[in-house]
Amino acid sequence: MRFTSETVTDGIREQLFTLGEIPGVLWTPADATTPRPLVLIGHGGGSSKKGWEVTSRAFPFVTTCGFAVAAIDAPGTGDRPFHPEVMRLVAVIDGLKDAGQSFEAEKLAMYETVVAELIPDWQKTLDALQQTEFVDRSRPIGYYGLSQGGELGIRLVADEPRIGAAVLGLVGSEWLLEPASRITVPVEYLLQWNDDGNPRDDVMRLFGALGSAEKTLHANPGSHFGIPMFEIDSAVRFFARHLGEATVVC
Amino acid sequence: MRFTSETVTDGIREQLFTLGEIPGVLWTPADATTPRPLVLIGHGGGSSKKGWEVTSRAFPFVTTCGFAVAAIDAPGTGDRPFHPEVMRLVAVIDGLKDAGQSFEAEKLAMYETVVAELIPDWQKTLDALQQTEFVDRSRPIGYYGLSQGGELGIRLVADEPRIGAAVLGLVGSEWLLEPASRITVPVEYLLQWNDDGNPRDDVMRLFGALGSAEKTLHANPGSHFGIPMFEIDSAVRFFARHLGEATVVC
Repeated sequence: MRFTSETVTDGIREQLFTLGEIPGVLWTPADATTPRPLVLIGHGGGSSKKGWEVTSRAFPFVTTCGFAVAAIDAPGTGDRPFHPEVMRLVAVIDGLKDAGQSFEAEKLAMYETVVAELIPDWQKTLDALQQTEFVDRSRPIGYYGLSQGGELGIRLVADEPRIGAAVLGLVGSEWLLEPASRITVPVEYLLQWNDDGNPRDDVMRLFGALGSAEKTLHANPGSHFGIPMFEIDSAVRFFARHLGEATVVC
Repeated sequence: MRFTSETVTDGIREQLFTLGEIPGVLWTPADATTPRPLVLIGHGGGSSKKGWEVTSRAFPFVTTCGFAVAAIDAPGTGDRPFHPEVMRLVAVIDGLKDAGQSFEAEKLAMYETVVAELIPDWQKTLDALQQTEFVDRSRPIGYYGLSQGGELGIRLVADEPRIGAAVLGLVGSEWLLEPASRITVPVEYLLQWNDDGNPRDDVMRLFGALGSAEKTLHANPGSHFGIPMFEIDSAVRFFARHLGEATVVC
């Protein structure tokens, strides 16, 4: 793991890094002198490691609870090279969409292509981050990912035993029922009431399938992108409860 | 309003009061020297103003955020005289239940009998409490009521403009769709995933009917009585957001 830049803004230290082919970013409190719990954030579709949906969560996670927060570019996004197979599948999906045809099988193929690389990438990143002075290895890891970050995150959380708590949601794919059933850690699961692309019943069914004894569905009115700000505060509290807090008051 | 007793335990001052025929209780921080936001708690069925489902919320509301919290006995409960019409309807409902027959009409009649007295009782209590030195009249009032406290509370919140935020839930009655549609204040709404008496779809439908621009459904696994403790913390945060906090850190 090679840190390639470091900047401090508004009390947050941002360090870009590369780990082999993986470009990533680590945010910590600028005044941090001790290791702290780590939260991984999985970015959404069409976005990358510093997308608004990542930073809008990462910054309060760092400033409120003193967490370390990391994000990486999924294959084919951000600072990574184009991914020919993902690009091919996206083009096929767009074509089917325009023709008004079903593209579920192609969507699944695309996610499986991405996730086959992304899960090992996250695991290597986690290995490396846990060797730095920023991360408290004695604490469970948090994962936060909605929409495509939930789609891919559900499989990561199911497969990676170091993850001890997860905020997921905005997804209800039938093919996720199996990995969801293998998740046993506490989950906060977000549903948007008027999310056209993710029918309420599908999202409810996937929430129902989660194997966790502690799981809470938070449903709010509005579209896919209309999650209220107070849900970020709720996620902070959720992670503070399960990862332990780095600061006294958060 | 006549305060009839005062005790202090664990930093909480408990004052019993009567207001005409209405027996009630007010909890405030023992060291409170200034008026503070008020939360009303509606007790559940078969319970009364000091039931566990009331005190388990009231005490953290007082100790965490410094709120004033009040509860009153619904007609026919606690320190109030037996209510002949409610008793008659309960007996009819029990008979129909034993006979395996529907009792929805009788349940509605019972709720309407209770609520016809309970709403004016709450409003008189609110008038009187707002005249005391304990309650900050400049702040909106909070209401917390689940199950029967939600059944009756939805009509109270719909009718009483001083209530500015409400935690409701564990109820999905069809006859509440109309009053729910008249509620416009922020609501946190609780659903228990395995609540036999309140089918998930009915509770979701009632949540959907709420007229509030800000409303959040919190669904957790478990039975009617299995609400996780962290939902109490969530309610504290919800009220702190909407009523304002009496203490600096809560």
